[in-house]
Amino acid sequence: MSSHRPAPEHTHPDDVPLLAALDALADPVRIQIVRELAASQEWTRACGSFDVPVRKAALSHHFSVLRGAGLVEQRDLGPKRVNRLRRAEFDERFPGLLALVLRGD
Amino acid sequence: MSSHRPAPEHTHPDDVPLLAALDALADPVRIQIVRELAASQEWTRACGSFDVPVRKAALSHHFSVLRGAGLVEQRDLGPKRVNRLRRAEFDERFPGLLALVLRGD
Repeated sequence: MSSHRPAPEHTHPDDVPLLAALDALADPVRIQIVRELAASQEWTRACGSFDVPVRKAALSHHFSVLRGAGLVEQRDLGPKRVNRLRRAEFDERFPGLLALVLRGD
Repeated sequence: MSSHRPAPEHTHPDDVPLLAALDALADPVRIQIVRELAASQEWTRACGSFDVPVRKAALSHHFSVLRGAGLVEQRDLGPKRVNRLRRAEFDERFPGLLALVLRGD
């Protein structure tokens, strides 16, 4: 049986303002999550599996920002919430932005 | 005679971390300044000439962030501090990022 928490709300990249996209990416924790997701198979990474130095409540907030910026899609898989990077859709809306983030510094 | 305030400090885009560039652009006032600069001749815009709803102290902070992110260069011209967008240098460091900001929403 799946968890009873409400399904996460998503925003499609097409509906994301530029400012929200920049703001979502202007954070070291969220950059790290995006980079790890880009290096992983889709739907294989649970929210707790990222190498970021934040507690659960803060992590939930970061994922909420990432969903709201059209960067991350989530689904509940039994007790786990798994993730994928919305790479193609986000690229189409903001060409080149993810590439800058993923190329490193 | 020129003003006696110290000359502004600048950071070259080559020395700007990605996070600082994203953070500088993730702000509506700074986006507006960058867009107006892009539409103006270099060195023609004084700091007080932008259509942004902030007071002088806040504006100084915004220009400091823009200089620190390698986006804006300033020089003192008599009593005025004038600006140019470091378009080519910034583009070379972060290809495509300014284009996203300048294309509008």
